[in-house]
Amino acid sequence: MGKYVFGVDLGGTTVKMGLFTEDAALLDKWEIPTVTDNNGVQILPDIAKSIKEKIQDRELEADEIIGVGIGAPGPIDGKGIIYKAPNLGWDVFNVAETLSGLVGFPVKAGNDANVAALGEMWKGGGAGYENLVMVTLGTGVGGGIIVEGKVLAGYNGSGGEIGHIHVKDNEEKVCGCGNKGCLEQYASATGIVYLATLRLAKDEAPSVLRGKQFTAKDVWDAVKAGDSLAMEVAEEFGEILGKALASIAATVNPEIFVIGGGVSRAGDILLDYIEKYYTPYVFRGSRETKFALATLENDAGIYGAAKLMLV
Amino acid sequence: MGKYVFGVDLGGTTVKMGLFTEDAALLDKWEIPTVTDNNGVQILPDIAKSIKEKIQDRELEADEIIGVGIGAPGPIDGKGIIYKAPNLGWDVFNVAETLSGLVGFPVKAGNDANVAALGEMWKGGGAGYENLVMVTLGTGVGGGIIVEGKVLAGYNGSGGEIGHIHVKDNEEKVCGCGNKGCLEQYASATGIVYLATLRLAKDEAPSVLRGKQFTAKDVWDAVKAGDSLAMEVAEEFGEILGKALASIAATVNPEIFVIGGGVSRAGDILLDYIEKYYTPYVFRGSRETKFALATLENDAGIYGAAKLMLV
Repeated sequence: MGKYVFGVDLGGTTVKMGLFTEDAALLDKWEIPTVTDNNGVQILPDIAKSIKEKIQDRELEADEIIGVGIGAPGPIDGKGIIYKAPNLGWDVFNVAETLSGLVGFPVKAGNDANVAALGEMWKGGGAGYENLVMVTLGTGVGGGIIVEGKVLAGYNGSGGEIGHIHVKDNEEKVCGCGNKGCLEQYASATGIVYLATLRLAKDEAPSVLRGKQFTAKDVWDAVKAGDSLAMEVAEEFGEILGKALASIAATVNPEIFVIGGGVSRAGDILLDYIEKYYTPYVFRGSRETKFALATLENDAGIYGAAKLMLV
Repeated sequence: MGKYVFGVDLGGTTVKMGLFTEDAALLDKWEIPTVTDNNGVQILPDIAKSIKEKIQDRELEADEIIGVGIGAPGPIDGKGIIYKAPNLGWDVFNVAETLSGLVGFPVKAGNDANVAALGEMWKGGGAGYENLVMVTLGTGVGGGIIVEGKVLAGYNGSGGEIGHIHVKDNEEKVCGCGNKGCLEQYASATGIVYLATLRLAKDEAPSVLRGKQFTAKDVWDAVKAGDSLAMEVAEEFGEILGKALASIAATVNPEIFVIGGGVSRAGDILLDYIEKYYTPYVFRGSRETKFALATLENDAGIYGAAKLMLV
């Protein structure tokens, strides 16, 4: 009877790995580098090798191991097929089957943002909920949709790509995806700096942000200090993100939104600005939807990957 | 071994019912009135009685019957609980369990728009696809999200309420849901008339629509006849709906959108206007999403209800 499960969070520079019990106890956590040379041909063999070493070190029996879950930075469908991952040099292939062949255990694979959502559901800010949407506000904006406890991967692995919901017409700047006016352009860490930069350029209103380089954290610190220009920026951020989450709620009707990523370190004040604009725009059936901050930080990926193997 | 399944499409004035084989052959189709007196207390007993009579008339054996699926006009979650249906006079209760107690067979229940989507997947415009979004453009705008062959009901049955995605700021008119600027206010049959009325009021441009009462069908007929004002209205309709569907695709990444409801009788030209604005705004992973017209018309509900019992 298996009772251990591995969770692998594959990133562009580092592979984070965790060994879990099936009731979400993290027994061990370690990292190896991601070697992207030669189109990332070595990535999965390196992961398999590291898992096998861990099994040997801990003297685990094969029949104690349920399998390996892996989250990777690219669109992955419900069967484990990745549809290209430029960060890794990967083309289209079945990640789950390939890794399973290398480790000799069952493997499930998912997109990293979707998998992080599963992690927050299992043991983080969304624990106890089965229908949740995770919103990761980092360098970009990622999303993960969980429906009845399972990842909504989408037809070709592009489910939960909520950072690319169109939210603004007449945008000049091009998003990383090639479109213009995507949510990510305003609600990510860089997006918040962009909103503040635009606001500063509009007039001469005083602000602690004026005349220096600043980060999204600086903007939120200014909001907390009562800087009125920064508070205007926070309103705009809240309106853009709140409306977008209202659209998502009209579509998938989650019980809770879990907000994570670096920007979420601003804390509860972030949720206040989002909810202020979410509530008046959302369909009444989703008006009571809860909001919470993510709690697992960088471990969401390994937790979620392990959980992926269990559902 | 069961081989027959009943599909029930419960509407505000009529209950449509169908008897199907499990491979989607419609053997019989009939209707009874919906009696909404006394908070609709008689509705489910009437349906149960009609099903029992049909079983007797056709001399079906109990063990040949898989069960009964029912679609109803209100939010229904994955367990069959309806969260109020004002049209029927219903409060919160478990529709599936109640009807099952009355007929003596397993019952599954779902929201009518979600169930119609399942019908189009089983035997209609979405046949052969497992990840689809149905958009019903009728008096209102309804939606049904199918993920891996199953209805996405949402936490409290409000999944797929895409008619209430916020698409326009500064709208004065109030939507049926109480919000302002919902998709339904522009993309439904009444919404298209509203868009045309606003356009006519803007200036004196000539149009066959000017100076008379007209319907959404009249608008589309004028578009087909090359009426340039009507064509402007169609562009606006396409832009609003195309962008909203792009948001939905960024969230759930379907393989196909199936467009139904009375407005869809306008035909392929409708899809052209939608796709024109969908494609540039959607995330690249969903750029190849297909568009098709629904084909089951008023039978989508009974087909979908039957299929609900089979998945």
